[in-house]
Amino acid sequence: MFYHIKELAYQAKPERPDPVFAKKIQELIGGQFGEMSVMNQYLFQAWGTRKHDKYRDLLLDTGTEEIGHIELLATMVARLLDDAPVTELETAAASNPAMAAIIGGMNPQHAIVSGLGAMPKDSMGVPWNAGYVAASGNLLADMRANLNAESQGRLQAVRLYEQTDDRGIKDMLSFLIARDTMHQNQWLAAIYELEQQEGVVVPSTFPKHLEKTDVSYLFLNHSMGDESSKGRWASGPSMDGMGTFQYVKDVPPFGPAPKLKPAPPAEHDTPPNVK
Amino acid sequence: MFYHIKELAYQAKPERPDPVFAKKIQELIGGQFGEMSVMNQYLFQAWGTRKHDKYRDLLLDTGTEEIGHIELLATMVARLLDDAPVTELETAAASNPAMAAIIGGMNPQHAIVSGLGAMPKDSMGVPWNAGYVAASGNLLADMRANLNAESQGRLQAVRLYEQTDDRGIKDMLSFLIARDTMHQNQWLAAIYELEQQEGVVVPSTFPKHLEKTDVSYLFLNHSMGDESSKGRWASGPSMDGMGTFQYVKDVPPFGPAPKLKPAPPAEHDTPPNVK
Amino acid sequence: MFYHIKELAYQAKPERPDPVFAKKIQELIGGQFGEMSVMNQYLFQAWGTRKHDKYRDLLLDTGTEEIGHIELLATMVARLLDDAPVTELETAAASNPAMAAIIGGMNPQHAIVSGLGAMPKDSMGVPWNAGYVAASGNLLADMRANLNAESQGRLQAVRLYEQTDDRGIKDMLSFLIARDTMHQNQWLAAIYELEQQEGVVVPSTFPKHLEKTDVSYLFLNHSMGDESSKGRWASGPSMDGMGTFQYVKDVPPFGPAPKLKPAPPAEHDTPPNVK
Amino acid sequence: MFYHIKELAYQAKPERPDPVFAKKIQELIGGQFGEMSVMNQYLFQAWGTRKHDKYRDLLLDTGTEEIGHIELLATMVARLLDDAPVTELETAAASNPAMAAIIGGMNPQHAIVSGLGAMPKDSMGVPWNAGYVAASGNLLADMRANLNAESQGRLQAVRLYEQTDDRGIKDMLSFLIARDTMHQNQWLAAIYELEQQEGVVVPSTFPKHLEKTDVSYLFLNHSMGDESSKGRWASGPSMDGMGTFQYVKDVPPFGPAPKLKPAPPAEHDTPPNVK
Amino acid sequence: MFYHIKELAYQAKPERPDPVFAKKIQELIGGQFGEMSVMNQYLFQAWGTRKHDKYRDLLLDTGTEEIGHIELLATMVARLLDDAPVTELETAAASNPAMAAIIGGMNPQHAIVSGLGAMPKDSMGVPWNAGYVAASGNLLADMRANLNAESQGRLQAVRLYEQTDDRGIKDMLSFLIARDTMHQNQWLAAIYELEQQEGVVVPSTFPKHLEKTDVSYLFLNHSMGDESSKGRWASGPSMDGMGTFQYVKDVPPFGPAPKLKPAPPAEHDTPPNVK
Amino acid sequence: MFYHIKELAYQAKPERPDPVFAKKIQELIGGQFGEMSVMNQYLFQAWGTRKHDKYRDLLLDTGTEEIGHIELLATMVARLLDDAPVTELETAAASNPAMAAIIGGMNPQHAIVSGLGAMPKDSMGVPWNAGYVAASGNLLADMRANLNAESQGRLQAVRLYEQTDDRGIKDMLSFLIARDTMHQNQWLAAIYELEQQEGVVVPSTFPKHLEKTDVSYLFLNHSMGDESSKGRWASGPSMDGMGTFQYVKDVPPFGPAPKLKPAPPAEHDTPPNVK
Repeated sequence: MFYHIKELAYQAKPERPDPVFAKKIQELIGGQFGEMSVMNQYLFQAWGTRKHDKYRDLLLDTGTEEIGHIELLATMVARLLDDAPVTELETAAASNPAMAAIIGGMNPQHAIVSGLGAMPKDSMGVPWNAGYVAASGNLLADMRANLNAESQGRLQAVRLYEQTDDRGIKDMLSFLIARDTMHQNQWLAAIYELEQQEGVVVPSTFPKHLEKTDVSYLFLNHSMGDESSKGRWASGPSMDGMGTFQYVKDVPPFGPAPKLKPAPPAEHDTPPNVK
Repeated sequence: MFYHIKELAYQAKPERPDPVFAKKIQELIGGQFGEMSVMNQYLFQAWGTRKHDKYRDLLLDTGTEEIGHIELLATMVARLLDDAPVTELETAAASNPAMAAIIGGMNPQHAIVSGLGAMPKDSMGVPWNAGYVAASGNLLADMRANLNAESQGRLQAVRLYEQTDDRGIKDMLSFLIARDTMHQNQWLAAIYELEQQEGVVVPSTFPKHLEKTDVSYLFLNHSMGDESSKGRWASGPSMDGMGTFQYVKDVPPFGPAPKLKPAPPAEHDTPPNVK
Repeated sequence: MFYHIKELAYQAKPERPDPVFAKKIQELIGGQFGEMSVMNQYLFQAWGTRKHDKYRDLLLDTGTEEIGHIELLATMVARLLDDAPVTELETAAASNPAMAAIIGGMNPQHAIVSGLGAMPKDSMGVPWNAGYVAASGNLLADMRANLNAESQGRLQAVRLYEQTDDRGIKDMLSFLIARDTMHQNQWLAAIYELEQQEGVVVPSTFPKHLEKTDVSYLFLNHSMGDESSKGRWASGPSMDGMGTFQYVKDVPPFGPAPKLKPAPPAEHDTPPNVK
Repeated sequence: MFYHIKELAYQAKPERPDPVFAKKIQELIGGQFGEMSVMNQYLFQAWGTRKHDKYRDLLLDTGTEEIGHIELLATMVARLLDDAPVTELETAAASNPAMAAIIGGMNPQHAIVSGLGAMPKDSMGVPWNAGYVAASGNLLADMRANLNAESQGRLQAVRLYEQTDDRGIKDMLSFLIARDTMHQNQWLAAIYELEQQEGVVVPSTFPKHLEKTDVSYLFLNHSMGDESSKGRWASGPSMDGMGTFQYVKDVPPFGPAPKLKPAPPAEHDTPPNVK
Repeated sequence: MFYHIKELAYQAKPERPDPVFAKKIQELIGGQFGEMSVMNQYLFQAWGTRKHDKYRDLLLDTGTEEIGHIELLATMVARLLDDAPVTELETAAASNPAMAAIIGGMNPQHAIVSGLGAMPKDSMGVPWNAGYVAASGNLLADMRANLNAESQGRLQAVRLYEQTDDRGIKDMLSFLIARDTMHQNQWLAAIYELEQQEGVVVPSTFPKHLEKTDVSYLFLNHSMGDESSKGRWASGPSMDGMGTFQYVKDVPPFGPAPKLKPAPPAEHDTPPNVK
Repeated sequence: MFYHIKELAYQAKPERPDPVFAKKIQELIGGQFGEMSVMNQYLFQAWGTRKHDKYRDLLLDTGTEEIGHIELLATMVARLLDDAPVTELETAAASNPAMAAIIGGMNPQHAIVSGLGAMPKDSMGVPWNAGYVAASGNLLADMRANLNAESQGRLQAVRLYEQTDDRGIKDMLSFLIARDTMHQNQWLAAIYELEQQEGVVVPSTFPKHLEKTDVSYLFLNHSMGDESSKGRWASGPSMDGMGTFQYVKDVPPFGPAPKLKPAPPAEHDTPPNVK
């Protein structure tokens, strides 16, 4: 169960309105690796954790924090949209090409649909969807999803930081970037704890002899050229300590060419007598 | 540029048709972490790699391998659909409740839309979409996306392995599971190489002093109870070696409650005089 | 900013596992009018409310309550999935047709993807998306969206109540149904307050003389037959008190047939000389 | 069954081409609350109405009217796209920054995909989808969906009216705005008739004693601060006349903290012995 | 502008309810090649036709017919859902395995969301979306899209015909199949007229010398084996009469391996010094 | 199984960076008729071809070629994004309106999400999805889908050719346009072969007497005016040679007005006694 306080997780005050940057900030709200994604990912992982209270609580804490980050960014977007222009581009262009570029570059839905508020969409106007969320019931798999999400998310926040000189936006981003530093660190810590106990291959519980172990440590060079042979993955002990990497320069097929049976007549596929 | 040979990466022969399992296998083709996702993820990452030939080649090799895995699974689906029933459920039910359950449980699109072939969709019939693909131009971020994808993917293949006793399906899955073992190992190796050079926080190139470092190593306990204090993330040196984890039991807001300006009249939001 | 407590908003204990009902319950989590929709709708409306603290707080309160309802339902789904069958349908069918029907009727992703946890998807496996959310900056418009959402939502909960005899599920649904009673009542109350001040047509701030008032109160009978003439909308004073309903039996076009200019050659549309 | 006449429901002639405004108008065609949504919503509601000929006809009439509104807007878009620029932005920019802003601000698909015609998409290029449509079989619920749709739709049309000074566009919008006035009025009238017979809570047919009535009229204050206590929803008789609103300042959980059983081994979730 | 009459384009009376077949019929309403697709495709094509009244009218006629086909199918779905079971599967299973299979096999949204009415979705519950619609402004291109849609659509209707023995369903399908026969014929006729005037390659207006004509008639054998050399496309005059087909057994690359510049530092891609 | 070589199918070197054109080129990668669509369409068709080796191989060849076209375009996009501006629009606008227009017109995700690489999305940022893919198991139906795809695809490439004066882009497009010439020719050839054997109506295997032949060759004039009577489809022998086209000026309904039964009480639709 959840509670809300009126204060923000951090301040969200731009120096001046900027509707084009408002459009860009949407990526951090409703993009593939925006706050809606991490909030839902952590909470759904938590709700599906069937023991392991320590990890469940870790996920609940961070998922709850992320709801507040959506709020923070939504507040920033609303302020960047203060007094957004509603003039026609062409009319504006005559007297003020810069204004024309702003009208052309802003998200029209901010002025038509949301009434100058944030939307649960990305910077290109695509609605957030739950296909971005990973929650598998396997903590090591999911902690890797989380580490990935925070890596992509911090990268995007840093790129946005570079794209503005508004000190208010930069200040807010510097907070989110720092929290992403922590979140990368904490998922790394959780991964470390889990790998110490389980090993590095997910899932750890599948009996080794049931997999086709002849190909478990082969690097298959499917492209001409062998630059890929120069990496750690091409020779030496495997990372899970259970095999030795081998580089296969010319990859053979391991199966025959398939021959399929014709479909039954009721499917009305192309009839077999057609040549 | 790509070439195709007729042989399969591995054999794909079930012992007998099974249209309900064909529906399940679709998850590995067109699901969030299916082969279409990893194929596109690795190839788009490769095509966006702007130096670093070793990693580019690594990605091209594995992305190309994955196209063949889609082919393998599509062949399996087609064979599991051989002679799928097209009788009406109710009619079938009268004489054969098992047949009725099969009709009810299979994907009707296999019989109506694809003509007993595989579809680029998941096990619930949702079309694959590119919102599943991560490709950021930052190799460490993306290698983590890849490790996550192979962890989730192997987990799903293992679960499907448990849900059948068809030796042909199990045989094919044991091959894919082994390749996922390799792929987890190889992305771990690549991550290891990158982290050795860059450190563990993505992106490594953002100057530390620009982030709000006071909150970079705080664990913020947003949920009542402190089970989360018992993990590696709550105390001790941070995983990046640049700070010390601290557990904040009672998390304060770092910003004030927001006050937004009213919208301009042209937006026709609720007028300010409404109470 | 948000906080979490470990207790649930209400209890969520089914009498026994039921994976087919778990699939159905997903509709209340990730369906068009599920809890993810109302949670996001109320919170995004609140974050975009640019004055009117009373309504902002109302929205924050209820939006925050709804996060807890997702948690409640996710917990129920997890329990309904306890020990879900992973046998193959055909094998099961031989000995136990009921089990076969369950395997055919459950959501395979619960066993393959989420590890027996809830997913942010609807009862047919379609991921939730933000296209379901209405938030316009106009409170009267949005309160109507909210009343609609709670009407549809309560209707769905009531239908699910009828589809089970599990007392634990019924108990939880009776709680959600009661909360939906309150939520319908509260949005009605808010609508009442707003309409008292603004009138019933949204937006209230558009000058009457700028609309084409000759057609503002005409009911246009576009279908043969006149059953529609028997309703309150066909005659008498209009609901906004500013006009009189009139029933137009034979609707004329108010515009001419369109003639479009040919496209410029650079578009390579069909060339004009083609007949 | 449907028939078409060549004349338009109203005239659709802009004063001059304007490809950026053509992009904006798309919101009224293929947006969440555009004409495609209301057309499909009213028609699917009608086709599912299982008695109640008066309402069925009402829905058919208005749904059929809306198909003509899509046509009207599509015609407007085609004319706004007459002679849209196909020059490269950078080349244009050198001599004509206003033209550059237009190229940057228009929807590139209008010139690449549709050949200067309207598309069934919103102003950000997102294809319309049927997740926007509400049709439940319960007329009161659905009339509320309709009132919401026309409220949001009129609001958007009014906002677009403010964003142009083209008299032709304004003229067409003034017609659509007037029709939306009627449609809000007519759905209000239908709601009035239904509420008089059924009461205000949807569905009206669920026995009161089956819901958890102790919480049916409680306002639960989930956020700190009590601005929300000042509304009509916080005290006095409830809108359905069957209870009394009560404001609960400190909301308790009504359920215990959940304890979930571990998953069965075949799921390969995190093994129970992991700490 | 459109009008509606109450009669159906054809009769839609099944012999008996059948909720599992209702789910299948949804494919013809809201599937990729269902009636919603063709209706929208033909109407949007018509609205974008900028001369060529004959084809515009042809498209308007058929698009209008298709709205009536949605109505026809929606009526059929409603009747197939009459008295659909709302019992719990497990309870049903005990006494009646056939009923259990029906509950497992029907679309739960028909009982939870639509109140036993048709939905604008496909047979797997995926909402229809406008990404299925082709409308390019080039008539020959679009007539080919239409011929394809009617080919796929008739194929699906025929397959459904095979999957039932209900004479009422078969009767309605035999009408739709016949109309699809006409529609294939009419698009073939339109294609014939256009190809006679323009030739067979779309668009016909692009100057031949601007394309890289050395590769305009080469069949490039990208897969090992040469079964593909046995078709009409591998030798002889090309279908457009402007070249000669040539079979290239060993396909060379026509471009060099790409070398990309590193990204600028502000992107925070992997730094160039990483190995 | 697939292999990759480092060389490109053709060269992909623009004369200069152009981030706005990079956004447009995305349409050819991830749009409805982009290379991802044809690649998947041809390969899934091939994998579902259950005999007919000649066509299977044809599809494999061309599908494999298309993967290389995605690579080609992705390389072009990466180069067009070299040194894309990351300045704030407003700051840029002060000194350089052309730069402002570029910032406003480019896809912000290229700078925030992909790190200046191509994305599997269209020119409006909508992720590619498999709803674009047609693969039915019936070769004639599918070859028509392919002919349509190549017609739409070539049209789009030609339009883009007109929108730039960069000789490098034009050169690459002239290659793709030529390949689309071939692909249209080859699908025409395949259609020709199939129609010679099967006739022109898909599927050819449905017994004529089972369709409602009275309406198989009627052109139904659903819109007022009879421009549509002037085409080949309105009179003369039908294209399949099995009937005679007839033009029906006044189209009657062939079915009665529907009367639906009320829903069972458990659905909680509007109660029957409501008027």
